[in-house]
Amino acid sequence: MRGALIYAPGDIRFEPLDDPRILNPTDAVIRTAVTCVCGSDLWPYRGVEPTEEPHPMGHEYVGFVEEVGSEVTSVRPGQFVIGSFATSDNTCANCRNGFQSNCLHREFMSTCQADHVRIPNAQGTLVATDGIPGEELWPSLLAVSDVMGTGWWAAEAAEVKRGSTAVVVGDGAVGLCAVIAAREMGAERIIAMSRHESRQRLAREFGATDIVAERGEEGVERIKELTGGIGADSVLECVGTGEAMRQALRSTRPGGNVGFVGVPHDVAVDGQELFFSHVGLRGGPAPVRRYLPDLIGLVQSGRIDPGKVFDLTLPLDEVAEGYRAMDERRAIKALLKP
Amino acid sequence: MRGALIYAPGDIRFEPLDDPRILNPTDAVIRTAVTCVCGSDLWPYRGVEPTEEPHPMGHEYVGFVEEVGSEVTSVRPGQFVIGSFATSDNTCANCRNGFQSNCLHREFMSTCQADHVRIPNAQGTLVATDGIPGEELWPSLLAVSDVMGTGWWAAEAAEVKRGSTAVVVGDGAVGLCAVIAAREMGAERIIAMSRHESRQRLAREFGATDIVAERGEEGVERIKELTGGIGADSVLECVGTGEAMRQALRSTRPGGNVGFVGVPHDVAVDGQELFFSHVGLRGGPAPVRRYLPDLIGLVQSGRIDPGKVFDLTLPLDEVAEGYRAMDERRAIKALLKP
Repeated sequence: MRGALIYAPGDIRFEPLDDPRILNPTDAVIRTAVTCVCGSDLWPYRGVEPTEEPHPMGHEYVGFVEEVGSEVTSVRPGQFVIGSFATSDNTCANCRNGFQSNCLHREFMSTCQADHVRIPNAQGTLVATDGIPGEELWPSLLAVSDVMGTGWWAAEAAEVKRGSTAVVVGDGAVGLCAVIAAREMGAERIIAMSRHESRQRLAREFGATDIVAERGEEGVERIKELTGGIGADSVLECVGTGEAMRQALRSTRPGGNVGFVGVPHDVAVDGQELFFSHVGLRGGPAPVRRYLPDLIGLVQSGRIDPGKVFDLTLPLDEVAEGYRAMDERRAIKALLKP
Repeated sequence: MRGALIYAPGDIRFEPLDDPRILNPTDAVIRTAVTCVCGSDLWPYRGVEPTEEPHPMGHEYVGFVEEVGSEVTSVRPGQFVIGSFATSDNTCANCRNGFQSNCLHREFMSTCQADHVRIPNAQGTLVATDGIPGEELWPSLLAVSDVMGTGWWAAEAAEVKRGSTAVVVGDGAVGLCAVIAAREMGAERIIAMSRHESRQRLAREFGATDIVAERGEEGVERIKELTGGIGADSVLECVGTGEAMRQALRSTRPGGNVGFVGVPHDVAVDGQELFFSHVGLRGGPAPVRRYLPDLIGLVQSGRIDPGKVFDLTLPLDEVAEGYRAMDERRAIKALLKP
């Protein structure tokens, strides 16, 4: 098979690799239907995270089951399946508590920008669709495996409620999907923070009622103006920088909630500021597995269409161009077709 | 009248002061029934917080209304009243959201270790009891004005639920009251972290099912052993130091919650650690005003008896000895009688 490897910052190569095979009786091997490049893949691409030696990339996938290990009974060869970027047995204490992305047997996926992928913990990780979905649904189903699930988690962690006001910090694919989630959870007002016209347009299409282009303290002031001076009920922080976190915390009303879903880089939260703010804070890798059945249903019924975040489609062997386009912000998110 | 002033670390004096009077139409003046020394009063007493110039002390009070301003209709002279350490109009947006301790017109009380006290925002702050309660209830009603209300908030912020496991970090008066709150909210297992025998005994009396004497990483390990390896559902952080916060966060299961109610001193929360923990974090000054009617009812019905945290009673003019006894941990909390 062939797949993407990173050799160094800016250096993505598409190369022949050993075919994946069943290593454990809990594994499955899938043939990739579509895969993609994630905003978080840009951390090593930009050198913010070090690359010690060449390694495969990619953690988003939908595909066809080719082979399953002897302990896998929940899916079978030929089925179209979706799984989370974090695998889970779906039976441990953390999984039963609904935090499958903190499964005691979790393995993070990292080899998915390839035409075939081994899935550990397949029994608890993969969910099959009813029948084989039409190709037009593949991008949205792929989005469910990470960015849509992560946007959903941002809204859940920020405790978005019917009739409430939600702010989304970050206009990447996750932030845009977070707008969808806030709308589905009934937020009456959804303020998307974005200064890029094409992303503003998509945010509005997904349900944003207001756009705020200001950032930092100016952005906070603008949110306060829009929320009776006290801040928003829920703020969905979908970036992962210290500035975005500060902006999120200061945009939230006393007693409101921040859900933060971008992996934090150099973020420290001041205890005294958090204390006097009365803001609740929860984040982490999204427990996508818990949402999969519902989100797959929402996509298959046509209720949500998160696949619109893919504004660039490339053959898988041009994966390096996908990274370049996202790095240069020419694309929100690049879809890759084997 | 007479009241306590702090002149410098370790220097508390009881001195004649101007009588308090109605300054604003929203004020009331009360004659103190009982007051007390708070754990947080020890921060300036120990020099951790600076004392620039002599100023009054004390923020906990119950008493008899002597006079009310022209806009105060909710209480009247002669009534026995309880209020929060943070005053509130109880009508602003933050109050309506249930965060009266973040009232847009909040003033923190700071002159209560005195025989008379002016209460700003009296209309929204003071709650009168049904009739004049017997003196035996005064300590518990006084506890409601801060430590019991704060313990309740710790349990609410940590989202204690029926049948859950709660850990209380800190065995001061607030921590002990937090045990009461966790019990009332239905926690099935309540683990109090304490290494002092008299406090352990009171914690058990209040409802603790387990005592853990270890601290820091050892304490975390012990909690993990007691909770199936994953940590507790809710951890109530009632100290306010960086070590206590770390211990609390690491003792919580993925998806669990930390409520932190000790004013943080030099506490910074690492964003990445919080992210991967999946722990929810909320703190702040307790919205005591919201709880007052319920907690007064629980005290008056004999259901809870938080006044037991007062293990030293002194005449008000010996207030300095109250500070000394608490500083030297000879007393959990000192009650002061005018």
